[in-house]
Amino acid sequence: MADQIGFIGLGIMGRPMALNLRRAGHALWVHARRPENMAPLVAAGATACASAREVAEHSDIIFTMVSDTDDVEQVINGEHGIVEGLRPGSIVVDMSTISPSATRALADLLETLGGEMLDAPVSGGEKGAIDGTLSIMVGGKAKVFARVRPLFEKMGKNVIHIGDNGAGQVAKACNQVVITQAIAAIGEAYLLAAANGVDPRKVREALLGGFASSRALESHGLRMLDGNYQPGFKAHLHKKDMRIVMESATETGIALPGTALVTQLINTAVGQGMGEDDSISIFRIQQKLCGVQVDRQED
Amino acid sequence: MADQIGFIGLGIMGRPMALNLRRAGHALWVHARRPENMAPLVAAGATACASAREVAEHSDIIFTMVSDTDDVEQVINGEHGIVEGLRPGSIVVDMSTISPSATRALADLLETLGGEMLDAPVSGGEKGAIDGTLSIMVGGKAKVFARVRPLFEKMGKNVIHIGDNGAGQVAKACNQVVITQAIAAIGEAYLLAAANGVDPRKVREALLGGFASSRALESHGLRMLDGNYQPGFKAHLHKKDMRIVMESATETGIALPGTALVTQLINTAVGQGMGEDDSISIFRIQQKLCGVQVDRQED
Repeated sequence: MADQIGFIGLGIMGRPMALNLRRAGHALWVHARRPENMAPLVAAGATACASAREVAEHSDIIFTMVSDTDDVEQVINGEHGIVEGLRPGSIVVDMSTISPSATRALADLLETLGGEMLDAPVSGGEKGAIDGTLSIMVGGKAKVFARVRPLFEKMGKNVIHIGDNGAGQVAKACNQVVITQAIAAIGEAYLLAAANGVDPRKVREALLGGFASSRALESHGLRMLDGNYQPGFKAHLHKKDMRIVMESATETGIALPGTALVTQLINTAVGQGMGEDDSISIFRIQQKLCGVQVDRQED
Repeated sequence: MADQIGFIGLGIMGRPMALNLRRAGHALWVHARRPENMAPLVAAGATACASAREVAEHSDIIFTMVSDTDDVEQVINGEHGIVEGLRPGSIVVDMSTISPSATRALADLLETLGGEMLDAPVSGGEKGAIDGTLSIMVGGKAKVFARVRPLFEKMGKNVIHIGDNGAGQVAKACNQVVITQAIAAIGEAYLLAAANGVDPRKVREALLGGFASSRALESHGLRMLDGNYQPGFKAHLHKKDMRIVMESATETGIALPGTALVTQLINTAVGQGMGEDDSISIFRIQQKLCGVQVDRQED
C-alpha cells in the first residue's frame, strides 16, 4: 500500500504545499487550527482530522508547516499531538522555520518513540509554494531523506540534503543571514546614491553587471525602488526568523555583528506597524533614519 | 586626424587597460611615476612622457588610473600636471576610484580651463582589466561620454553612463557598499553553519539555488571556503574605497551603519598585515573574532 501522507498547518505556505502533494495523487490527512483552512484541501479530496494525533494515527509521513518553535513543539509533543498517535516507523517532516537546537531535541524524542524526523525549511515564499518551486534545505538521516525526497520534489525544485537533524534549519538560518544583509546593503547603496543626487535606478543597473549582482538586487532591489511593500515574505515572519538566527548565535557562542544590526532594523519595522508588509520594509526604516526619500511610496 | 590618447598611471590596473587601447590601434602617450612601468607600453608602440603635463600636451583624451584622491589631484593640478599642458577641448577621464566631491571639484576646474572631465571608475579587478571585461561606471556630460565610449569599450563590457560629474564615483561607492557587505554576510553565514557543526559547503550549495544567491557567493564565497586569499582585489585598496564611501556618507549627512561595520573589518584586516592579500581577508578577521576556523587556511 502506498504511503499515507499527513499535513498539519495549512496557512499561506502549507495550503499550497499540501495541495501540490494532493494533486500528485497522494492520500492526504490534514489538520489545521482554523477549520476553514482545511476546506480547500477537503475539496481536493483530502480528509480533515480533528487533531494532529488523528493525522498521525493515519499517516506514514507527516508534514508540519506552522509558524514558530513553540507551535512545532505543540503539534508534535503537546496535547492531542503527533506523538500520541505516532505509528512505528513514521516520519515527521517539519518544514517550518524554527530553532535548530529545538529541532535536534524533537528528533531525539521521536527516535526514542520509534519514529524518524527530518527538518526541511523552505525558501521561495508563497509564490514558490504555489508553483512548487521552493528551495528545500533538509536535515536528518540520508536514508530517511531518500524516502521523502519524491514528496519534496512535488513541492520544490532545489531539494538539498544538508546534514544531520537540525542542519536544514541551520542552512535556512544562514540563508536569512545572507538575504537580510543583502537587502539592507542595497538600501544603504540607494541612500548613498540619492544623497549624492544620483539616480539609484542607474546605480542598480550598473551593479547588476558586476560582482555586486545578486538575486536580491534583481528582485528585492527593484521592489524597493518601486516602493512595492506587498508581501512576498511578511516582515513579522522575517523578524521571527532573525530571532531564531540570533538565538542560535547566542547558543553557539559566536559573534554575528552584521546580522545583529539588520535584526534591529527588522525589529523596528515590525514595531512601527509594518509586520504584515514585505520584509523589504527595512528600507523604509533606513530612509526614515536618514531623512531621505528614495522609493516611490507616498507616506 | 584621429584622437591622440594619453594614459597616466600604469600599475596593476592601468597597464593592461592602456595595452588594450594600444592594441586597438590608438596613438598613445603614457606616463608613470615608475619608469619601469612604462616599458611594456613602449614595447607595444606607445610613447613615454616625462610628466603628466607632457602627456596632456600631446593628447585629446587623457586617461588617469592612479590610487587615491590626492594622486588624481596631483596628476591633474599638481606640479607638471595635466592642467599645465591641457589643450583646448581636451577630455580628462579619471578611472581611479576616488572621492565623488573631489571629482566634482576637479571637473569644475577643468571646465573653467576649457577642458572636459569624465569620472569612470571600474570594477572587475586585474582579470577584468587584462581581459577587457571591466564594468565602467561613468559620470559627466552625455556628449562627452558619447565621444569616449568607443575607447571605454576597448577596456570594458558593461559601460554605463550614470549621470553628471561624480556620478560614476558614486556608483562605484555604491558597488563597494553592496559587495563588502555581501562578503561579510557570507562570512557570518559560514560561521553560523560551522558553529552548528554543519558543512558550510553544503550551505553555500543550498543558498546558490535561492534568493540568497549572488555573484559574491559564487566567486568570493568559494575562495573564502578554500582559504584562497590571493588577490584579486587587495585589502588595502578596498580599505581606501571604504574610507571614500564613509567620507561621502559623512559629507552628505547620512547613516550607513552596515557599511560602517564592514569598514571596521577591512580596516583591522589591513592593520593586521593583510593589506596585500585579497579583501576577502575580512573573513579571517571574522573567524578570529569568533574563535572558529572555517576555511582551509593553515595559520
